[in-house]
Amino acid sequence: MTSVLENLALDSEPPCTPTTPRPATVRIGQLGLGNVGAALARLTAHSSVELQAHGLAPVTPVALVRSIDRPRPAAEFVGQLTNDPDTFFAQPLDVVVEIMGGVEPAYSLVRRALDRGVPVVTANKSLVAAHGEALCDLARRNGTTLRYEASCIAGVPFIGTFDRRPLASRIDGLTAILNGTSNTILTAIANGSTFEHALDDAQQRGLAEPDPSADITGRDAAEKLTLLIRQFGRLLVTPDAVPTTGISGVDPVDLRAAALLGGSVKPLAHAEWNEGALQAFVGPAFVAAGHSLARIHGATNGIVLHSTRGPLCYAGPGAGPDVTAVTLLDDVCEVATESRVQTPNPIAACAATPQWTQESGWFVRVEGRPPAIETSELLGSYGLWCERTATVDERLYALTYPTTAAKVHAALNALRAATGDAARALPAFSAEGDAC
Amino acid sequence: MTSVLENLALDSEPPCTPTTPRPATVRIGQLGLGNVGAALARLTAHSSVELQAHGLAPVTPVALVRSIDRPRPAAEFVGQLTNDPDTFFAQPLDVVVEIMGGVEPAYSLVRRALDRGVPVVTANKSLVAAHGEALCDLARRNGTTLRYEASCIAGVPFIGTFDRRPLASRIDGLTAILNGTSNTILTAIANGSTFEHALDDAQQRGLAEPDPSADITGRDAAEKLTLLIRQFGRLLVTPDAVPTTGISGVDPVDLRAAALLGGSVKPLAHAEWNEGALQAFVGPAFVAAGHSLARIHGATNGIVLHSTRGPLCYAGPGAGPDVTAVTLLDDVCEVATESRVQTPNPIAACAATPQWTQESGWFVRVEGRPPAIETSELLGSYGLWCERTATVDERLYALTYPTTAAKVHAALNALRAATGDAARALPAFSAEGDAC
Repeated sequence: MTSVLENLALDSEPPCTPTTPRPATVRIGQLGLGNVGAALARLTAHSSVELQAHGLAPVTPVALVRSIDRPRPAAEFVGQLTNDPDTFFAQPLDVVVEIMGGVEPAYSLVRRALDRGVPVVTANKSLVAAHGEALCDLARRNGTTLRYEASCIAGVPFIGTFDRRPLASRIDGLTAILNGTSNTILTAIANGSTFEHALDDAQQRGLAEPDPSADITGRDAAEKLTLLIRQFGRLLVTPDAVPTTGISGVDPVDLRAAALLGGSVKPLAHAEWNEGALQAFVGPAFVAAGHSLARIHGATNGIVLHSTRGPLCYAGPGAGPDVTAVTLLDDVCEVATESRVQTPNPIAACAATPQWTQESGWFVRVEGRPPAIETSELLGSYGLWCERTATVDERLYALTYPTTAAKVHAALNALRAATGDAARALPAFSAEGDAC
Repeated sequence: MTSVLENLALDSEPPCTPTTPRPATVRIGQLGLGNVGAALARLTAHSSVELQAHGLAPVTPVALVRSIDRPRPAAEFVGQLTNDPDTFFAQPLDVVVEIMGGVEPAYSLVRRALDRGVPVVTANKSLVAAHGEALCDLARRNGTTLRYEASCIAGVPFIGTFDRRPLASRIDGLTAILNGTSNTILTAIANGSTFEHALDDAQQRGLAEPDPSADITGRDAAEKLTLLIRQFGRLLVTPDAVPTTGISGVDPVDLRAAALLGGSVKPLAHAEWNEGALQAFVGPAFVAAGHSLARIHGATNGIVLHSTRGPLCYAGPGAGPDVTAVTLLDDVCEVATESRVQTPNPIAACAATPQWTQESGWFVRVEGRPPAIETSELLGSYGLWCERTATVDERLYALTYPTTAAKVHAALNALRAATGDAARALPAFSAEGDAC
């Protein structure tokens, strides 16, 4: 009997001379040459060693930009800059990469590429949230593909993986941190900062946009959640329809209370579905310390996919030009090496209306330093039972047993009527079923 | 200007009538019909809805087994059982799935399939650790593929993903929990069990094999680490060459001390590489509470891939017949839908010798309740500086500043010579760089 070592030596004789396949030229047309576009053009020019070993030689003959007068540091990596779509589409292209952002004119331009059978790679969550199903259908009818790995948790490939794997894709819900700016701000608040200072600091470090409203209102996460609900649940919703709360109401006292109650407040996106019924929300929520997302800090993003086989967890860098460029160019490589044979039709997606009406735990805050026992009893008499309470500064905080949002509203209104104490509540998630 | 909602309604008109592509028959030949093989044959027969929507209709016309006399509950899902390889290979097959385990006869049978250009899907980490490079070369030469997603963290697809993505694959190291049995036992010990009781309980719950030696000695994790080092580092090692320690030396006092020092002891597999030099080990190690792997409990597996863009984390169910069957059948679906065009040659892999000679922190245990300050000073005089100490029962525990294994050995030997106190040490990992 031979040992493993002998077998290995026998048949592989590791050759350390590089193999020299003849790389195939891949002509990339870029729709956009802003921060992400510049990072992509630079990466494409600088990655020839890895990509030639993979059999590919990508080049960027043309980029469509809004203004050809503005100086652009990455212009040297692009053959031609144009602001004319006809000039752009007159070039022979193997793949179009869309990094303009926003729905229009991106939507029209992507359709134009797919109509010609040219595959499209995009990082644009607004576009995929609004028109993902229509664009995938269009790609399929034209025998080509639309890829959008970079549109959601840009640094961690998982969307394309599940696209190819019908059995792993038996997912019945997900909980995620999809917006790095919100998570950076809440992490800073947990470390003692105020909301305003945390936002200012994130902007100065380039982690938040000059106009951060899409991030802090939850709109960005709602678009990404919409995209993921279509992907994994085969349900069509609009971002506007997702019950969404921004993070601006969360303050340092909330974070201290959450820590005292054994967890943290995180900017969550959550969805679960069952026979076409969809429960979903975006907003700050309490997560117990053992939950997989409790420790996703700063600009890191993460997702827990719920399957009957247990939770599957993916986490890593969520955004940034260099991170996004890597994922876009990998999508280009996949598109360039995969078969042009039409992918089979997936299960048709159905329209759905997301609600948040099911029972969950709640993280309740009551202003005015009310007495804990009496307040708990009063809330309990309206069906909102407190499991644990903590008093921080002038507020009473409670973690409740599971109940519906309607019951929480009724109990908090009754409390206000009885005592005058203002109160609010965030959904609360235990670690159970979400620890991996 | 139209709203997102109007656009969506306009172009998708969600059809809830299922599409009816004509599914392609995929003839699977199973090498093996044990626990995993039975789960696969059953899943193949019972997944027709998902798979037809994906355009595929897999069937299992034949399975090769050691004995055709043994009653097999899953035989009803297989056209023909045979113990004759010639009969097996006389069937026209679209894919061969190998779930026999072990290196031979699996190796010869997989070569025979690949030699005929038939793609192979396997869950066999021993086979891929020993012969992965040779088998991938053979597949490539025959214009076909070898897939082994189920061989490592069976429930979480990531290996095939990185195979397709050359830029995300710029990974320079990894830290992982790859053996669910070891992790189940250490988790139970952390919760107050003894090693013997934890092993016995894991066996009774079907989480540990009747012969658990490959799990508790670290051999299983060393094979999986070997496979991952080839995959991500393009370095060829043998499992025998990986410095490997089993978990049987870890007791409940160690786990209590680890908790006092702000972490846990986990069954790790670790590797990092730089220009052909490879640092690697398998064995129990201290991980700080903020580390991504500190909270991977029980049968769950997890991996942190180190990239210049930050850590990428994947976690989920690591093994089990049903989990493994899902991943095997998804690999079959990928093989059946992807192009038969030869994948380009990847970068050639080189032989390497794994060592654990670099500096790391250490979790030191000294028997005999020695005085903390004097012992720390003595260890420090030999270059092993303690950052924190804790005394539990009759032992002194310390977390040290980074140093090499050689210095640790020298210091512990000097301590023993001076005081007679027996001591041992495990590598210690902080959360830095590994939190996601």
